Amino acid sequence: MAAADSSSHPHAGDPVFDLHVGGKMQTVSTVSLTGADDLSKAYTPGVALVCEAIAADPSMTQHYTWVPNVVAIVSDGTAVLGLGDIGPAAAMPVMEGKAVLFKQFGGVDAVPICLDTTDVEEIIETVVRLAPSFGGINLEDISAPRCFEIEDRLKERLDIPVFHDDQHGTAVVALAALTNALRLTGRSPEGTRVVISGAGAAGVAVARILLEAGIKDLAVVDRKGVLHSGRGDLTPVKRALAVDTADHFGRTGSLADVLVGADVFIGVSGGTVPEEYVATMAPESIVFGLANPMPEVHPDVAHRHARVVATGRSDFPNQINNVLAFPGIFRGAFDVHATAITEGMKLAAAEALAALVGDDLSEDLIIPSPFDPRVGPAVAAAVSAAARRDGVARR
Amino acid sequence: MAAADSSSHPHAGDPVFDLHVGGKMQTVSTVSLTGADDLSKAYTPGVALVCEAIAADPSMTQHYTWVPNVVAIVSDGTAVLGLGDIGPAAAMPVMEGKAVLFKQFGGVDAVPICLDTTDVEEIIETVVRLAPSFGGINLEDISAPRCFEIEDRLKERLDIPVFHDDQHGTAVVALAALTNALRLTGRSPEGTRVVISGAGAAGVAVARILLEAGIKDLAVVDRKGVLHSGRGDLTPVKRALAVDTADHFGRTGSLADVLVGADVFIGVSGGTVPEEYVATMAPESIVFGLANPMPEVHPDVAHRHARVVATGRSDFPNQINNVLAFPGIFRGAFDVHATAITEGMKLAAAEALAALVGDDLSEDLIIPSPFDPRVGPAVAAAVSAAARRDGVARR
Repeated sequence: MAAADSSSHPHAGDPVFDLHVGGKMQTVSTVSLTGADDLSKAYTPGVALVCEAIAADPSMTQHYTWVPNVVAIVSDGTAVLGLGDIGPAAAMPVMEGKAVLFKQFGGVDAVPICLDTTDVEEIIETVVRLAPSFGGINLEDISAPRCFEIEDRLKERLDIPVFHDDQHGTAVVALAALTNALRLTGRSPEGTRVVISGAGAAGVAVARILLEAGIKDLAVVDRKGVLHSGRGDLTPVKRALAVDTADHFGRTGSLADVLVGADVFIGVSGGTVPEEYVATMAPESIVFGLANPMPEVHPDVAHRHARVVATGRSDFPNQINNVLAFPGIFRGAFDVHATAITEGMKLAAAEALAALVGDDLSEDLIIPSPFDPRVGPAVAAAVSAAARRDGVARR
Repeated sequence: MAAADSSSHPHAGDPVFDLHVGGKMQTVSTVSLTGADDLSKAYTPGVALVCEAIAADPSMTQHYTWVPNVVAIVSDGTAVLGLGDIGPAAAMPVMEGKAVLFKQFGGVDAVPICLDTTDVEEIIETVVRLAPSFGGINLEDISAPRCFEIEDRLKERLDIPVFHDDQHGTAVVALAALTNALRLTGRSPEGTRVVISGAGAAGVAVARILLEAGIKDLAVVDRKGVLHSGRGDLTPVKRALAVDTADHFGRTGSLADVLVGADVFIGVSGGTVPEEYVATMAPESIVFGLANPMPEVHPDVAHRHARVVATGRSDFPNQINNVLAFPGIFRGAFDVHATAITEGMKLAAAEALAALVGDDLSEDLIIPSPFDPRVGPAVAAAVSAAARRDGVARR
């Protein structure tokens, strides 16, 4: 009685495909049914008592169902990894992988929900209707700018955490790494000049969290150059970001222009930055090339000019990996039955991550390893505490 | 790192509530991640190869995701057990219980989806959008007559099994039990007169499957009496059923009228049938009172007049329990990647269930126990074979 035949499949012998046979997850029961008495408690007639208790007091859901510990990983398959719009069926292996990471690194149950629609209104309505079944919503691999509206409107309508990991997971880990890179190079946030290449989901979110963390001089660059209010081609999200970033210092022009003398480059665009641009940055510069699998600046190139280098890859030091954030963030939110994930909770997660490096700080260690067992609990504790400070904790 | 504190909860000490603390299910990973190499295969960058393979050939979903083994248990909470319309949150303990039964008795992964809408169009649209994430849809505790339209239209739109268990699970098990009761009392389907009390989800489905199984003389009774075409108050579903049942023999009148001389009574109404009505039935009559927890005819009363008695309760012999059917039916459908659950698959499930009793057949044993380990595999094998015969198997 098994769905997948693991001994024969179209790509048998390929270690990646072999690992994916039958999928990467299951549901399991936490109660054992060995006879009619068990059945009468876990199912009818006993279960009716539990249903009635919840009908009378919905907060009983938190005690007597799995709901408060389960997150829906919701995608429409439009921006999957670097593959783009591959649709809901092809997105599933990523969402299952995410579910595996939620469980292993945060003790969070997770259900992949790949939707057969890319319409903003339909996605919002569908998630609202699903919401009674879940303790939180993790949006995943939904293309920009639709992802901004979907997240904003779901946050307004739901009283459970809604979190777009491609935005905020990346932002939290990038901030943690940058915090330690600034410490290593003796910089303050206020005195640091930052350039972000990419104004999609990750670029916007990284910019926003850096502003909240005290970075003042920040320019965000898209394919047509620096986002500034003089441009007539900006979406509402980019326009608002321009006002809060490059406009303050009157920065305009191209990526090459704005990199001259910059302290920090953060690439979340997937393009390639020529070495000669990197060479024009300030001394002891900081270069994060986060595109996968090809960073915007290859670490070997970056190291010729920069003091601190990070990537999204596991085969170089300083991997900016979302798995450092999202499992602990949801664990911390769920532990206090939080009604939302606030900016304060994200900043607290980044601070907790950065602090774990401690005295081990060096050019090759600005962020912990995903397999550091302290990560999940430390992030969760910081997020729970921040939820209480921000008034979104229900216990 | 656990969501529920099992040591203290509002109903601590009550064995039913104690069992439900933290819910009854979890998601688990089937792959182990012990280092960066595992992560690079189960998640980025390796997983991209699997996504690309599915994007190129959607049938690869069947090999490399959990989708073909996972059913969504979808409810709107409008007809939960005997509790009625208690809403999606309060329905969750039942749906989790169902998920536990799917896994234990069928090896089927299951995710409870309780929807925050009772609108027919919205439920249909929502399930269609969710469908890429699931290998099948089990509709549950959705009130009649909405459940008929929802199931029919979802079956038209989706190429995965859609099954309303309150209808067809009950029907399959009732047919299996009736098959053995007829054998025990030496009756043929063609020569047996049957009365069904209740024209909701279960009543309609039981009537339909009995017709398919060869019962000719069948009357279905609702609160206003026998369903026949002379009545002006029938819904389209009831009118169609009247034409196919009582109209053939010109039966009209009340439950009391039609029970006189009847061979079989099947109660799926939740009302109470007076003993004097039961006393008017044919000799060696068969009485199934399936309402829970109070059968339409209490077994002690029924036994004074009937030869074979069955109920929905676990504390009397001959329990008509849906768990005998739905896990094996989905197991059998999933094993051959069936695109639908046909009438032939349901009949095959009932035949397989009935056959398991074999030579042990007696008044107190017309249907196997839910804990008989042969049940799930036998039903699954019969359903897989029927799916192949009916041309809905994809392997």
